[in-house]
Amino acid sequence: MAKVKKQPRPKAQTPKGFRDYFGAEVAQRTEMLTKIAGVYHRYGFDALETSAVETVEALGKFLPDVDRPNEGVFAWEEDNDWLALRYDLTAPLARVAAQYRNDLPSPYRRYAMGPVWRNEKPGPGRFRQFYQCDADTVGASSVAADAEICAMLSDTLEVVGIPRGDYVVRVNNRKVLNGVLEVAGLAGDDKEAERGIVLRAIDKLDRLGVDGVRALLGEGRKDASGDFTKGAGLSDEQAEIVVGFMQAKRADGAATVARLRELVAGSQVGADGVAELETMAELLSAGGYQSDRIEIDPSVVRGLGYYTGPVFEAELTFEVLDEKGRPRNFGSVAGGGRYDDLVKRFTGQEVPATGVSIGVDRLLAALHAKGRLDKTMDGPVVVTVMDRDRMADYQGMVAELRNAGIRAEVYLGNPKNFGNQLKYADKRNSPAAVIAGGDEFDAGMVQIKDLILGAEIAKNATLEEWKDRPSQYEVPRDQLVAKLREILDGQG
Amino acid sequence: MAKVKKQPRPKAQTPKGFRDYFGAEVAQRTEMLTKIAGVYHRYGFDALETSAVETVEALGKFLPDVDRPNEGVFAWEEDNDWLALRYDLTAPLARVAAQYRNDLPSPYRRYAMGPVWRNEKPGPGRFRQFYQCDADTVGASSVAADAEICAMLSDTLEVVGIPRGDYVVRVNNRKVLNGVLEVAGLAGDDKEAERGIVLRAIDKLDRLGVDGVRALLGEGRKDASGDFTKGAGLSDEQAEIVVGFMQAKRADGAATVARLRELVAGSQVGADGVAELETMAELLSAGGYQSDRIEIDPSVVRGLGYYTGPVFEAELTFEVLDEKGRPRNFGSVAGGGRYDDLVKRFTGQEVPATGVSIGVDRLLAALHAKGRLDKTMDGPVVVTVMDRDRMADYQGMVAELRNAGIRAEVYLGNPKNFGNQLKYADKRNSPAAVIAGGDEFDAGMVQIKDLILGAEIAKNATLEEWKDRPSQYEVPRDQLVAKLREILDGQG
Repeated sequence: MAKVKKQPRPKAQTPKGFRDYFGAEVAQRTEMLTKIAGVYHRYGFDALETSAVETVEALGKFLPDVDRPNEGVFAWEEDNDWLALRYDLTAPLARVAAQYRNDLPSPYRRYAMGPVWRNEKPGPGRFRQFYQCDADTVGASSVAADAEICAMLSDTLEVVGIPRGDYVVRVNNRKVLNGVLEVAGLAGDDKEAERGIVLRAIDKLDRLGVDGVRALLGEGRKDASGDFTKGAGLSDEQAEIVVGFMQAKRADGAATVARLRELVAGSQVGADGVAELETMAELLSAGGYQSDRIEIDPSVVRGLGYYTGPVFEAELTFEVLDEKGRPRNFGSVAGGGRYDDLVKRFTGQEVPATGVSIGVDRLLAALHAKGRLDKTMDGPVVVTVMDRDRMADYQGMVAELRNAGIRAEVYLGNPKNFGNQLKYADKRNSPAAVIAGGDEFDAGMVQIKDLILGAEIAKNATLEEWKDRPSQYEVPRDQLVAKLREILDGQG
Repeated sequence: MAKVKKQPRPKAQTPKGFRDYFGAEVAQRTEMLTKIAGVYHRYGFDALETSAVETVEALGKFLPDVDRPNEGVFAWEEDNDWLALRYDLTAPLARVAAQYRNDLPSPYRRYAMGPVWRNEKPGPGRFRQFYQCDADTVGASSVAADAEICAMLSDTLEVVGIPRGDYVVRVNNRKVLNGVLEVAGLAGDDKEAERGIVLRAIDKLDRLGVDGVRALLGEGRKDASGDFTKGAGLSDEQAEIVVGFMQAKRADGAATVARLRELVAGSQVGADGVAELETMAELLSAGGYQSDRIEIDPSVVRGLGYYTGPVFEAELTFEVLDEKGRPRNFGSVAGGGRYDDLVKRFTGQEVPATGVSIGVDRLLAALHAKGRLDKTMDGPVVVTVMDRDRMADYQGMVAELRNAGIRAEVYLGNPKNFGNQLKYADKRNSPAAVIAGGDEFDAGMVQIKDLILGAEIAKNATLEEWKDRPSQYEVPRDQLVAKLREILDGQG
């Protein structure tokens, strides 16, 4: 007989750069998104959910990040049209703002949360699909809109579990920077390349320190590995003006504003920027947002080229240990600013817009690092199966538990090996197992095994303090719910 | 001067077959998914979120629907690998169950909710991206797992707002059908085509009635348009056996089971199926699920070929009006069953599985049709801007309202035209507008315009009953929150 050649089996693997999220990971993110949506909603923002797929034409072909202009999207041809997965939530907003411009309220406040896709080389902790969580106001030119976004960002951080004092929203204004550059003799179209280098140099202050930035403003900088990065070629005098700007932060907002006003003296755009910062500070103060939550910080510039006015960044101010156990600042978890050519490429009309994007995964990581995510045993109570013929009785028990709001399930594997059932309960992180065989049914009783207590006993070598508390006991069947609730309430 | 040729502007349009969801549409779906996840969680199911992108190899190239075996997925080549958007949530579950088989608990109960993509011709109400909401148990061969899914489906429908009596979960078993086909002389590999036709014919009972199905079981059927569908070619005697099966439903589960047992007499697989149905009925009854919620109904077969045991379907039993105003049954909103070769294509090992998929969009449509979705004015309170220089005061007001949990915003457009501000509030579905200019500030007062009342007055021609209730009045500034809460609580 001829052998039929078998197809090789497919590999059970996620594509490179993609990952799966299980149980608590999903639940914690969902919970965080729900909390964030609650704040956004309270601020009058409306939800918008666009599809994952857009035409390449509507999306624009390139990511907005100037450092990687050619990094791409996942795209394919379909019916003579090129389609692609969205790479952020701003490009679809631009399309929506243009498509529905006659129907949407103006200003249009919208929030959006969902995955975006980047066709980039994956790396450790760097995935090709990740969540974004944005809020933008389209059609409002007033900096009141920017102030509102900053206030909302501050509220959001507190609502998701970052207490006041553990974060700061830092605000700056691109017009101030432009004014400073004008004063330094770097205005004009022929200086665009230099301005770009200055922008990115300031953005690296955290990492390189003042001397590193100064080097990048001048001839350039050689890093520890010997690689040389070409600088902006500024004279010492010019560089000093920029460094003065970076270090213009004073003890309070008023003093910082005064210092900035000195620095941009003679530049109209600079004066406009300082006035905008001042207005934002006033509005925020009136809303109860003082400098312990939102402060003016001239060192914030945001690397992206497209911002045109206020820029802001939320930073967590506590230290965490990195992979090697060294303390480091947790750093930025959100950022945004004003950008004014959102809809223009579709309609030709300039529409002002401002918005923020929160890095949900970073924020979750921060809460994990601070031990602020719920770690109670959230597994279900497992009703074990001693007697296969009594499955209806076991189902009755779990139904009763579920109706009482207790997460519960009956063991559905092969019940032959009882040890496997307890191992299963362990793997599920169960707080308790319920055990009932013929004897218990005859006596109208059930056994409860307290697995939280069991885990405590296993952790603590000295059994002394536990010995009076049995981790397994019998209760009358009709006290099953009450007893389990006692165990569940006692945990944590 | 030579004219620079301009790039044509991109079209601001969703790709064909895709759509955007706004405001309440997103919020209502999110709320429904949260409720469903709550029930699934209580039943011990754990969340799983896989990425939208899978390798074509892992996904399998084709949709499971036998009627459209060549209908496709959205796929593209990437680094010599073909990637595709998932077309359902079951194929990724199969990949996960194989990939993590040594780490996952067994049985593995998981739920998943999210968009899936189908590269099909779009039509009215038929989109290429839509939500699925699945729960499956992998690794449990006992029908206790199927019974649990049915109970969970019943609970879920009630939790999302379909009261008992407005739905029924109908249960059948493919083995019973196979037994009936065996009795009718349709067993054996050479009869597979006939069995497929029979399966799909029974599935059309609702639409075609008994005579229509009988025609499809025999020579075939000509529809109203004159199109002929070839039948299974059964003899009258054979067809009668199948029709008898379809109509085997009796007044209660026990009588139906007894009737089915008669029909499959002599077939082992048929007897097994009847025994499974009986066991499920027992387990469900023990959990409190009687035939007003879950009933045995032999006419449920589910069109898909891959089910191997219990099959079930949730149907809404009330009538709604269709587009032409005719009453019709709302019909099916969820379905599922047992399928046993989930993981086999990856590992060679047979792993039993059972699960359900809820049509979230259908369910939302049903709640809309019954007027059961919240229709209160959920827009924000709009604080209007009479005096541009007092923006900080207005921001202070909205901050106070938000802190009191009231959805509120300050008008951020150009405040020059006050009428535009009220039109905006109207477009936002605002319950109230707050108005304060120089006079009010001097007197420590604010004006409140009750837009709910305004809308009522506009709706009702006779102003008599309203004339004592002014829709705009002045209150002291420090009573702003209290007064607005009164208005918001009063709406219904």
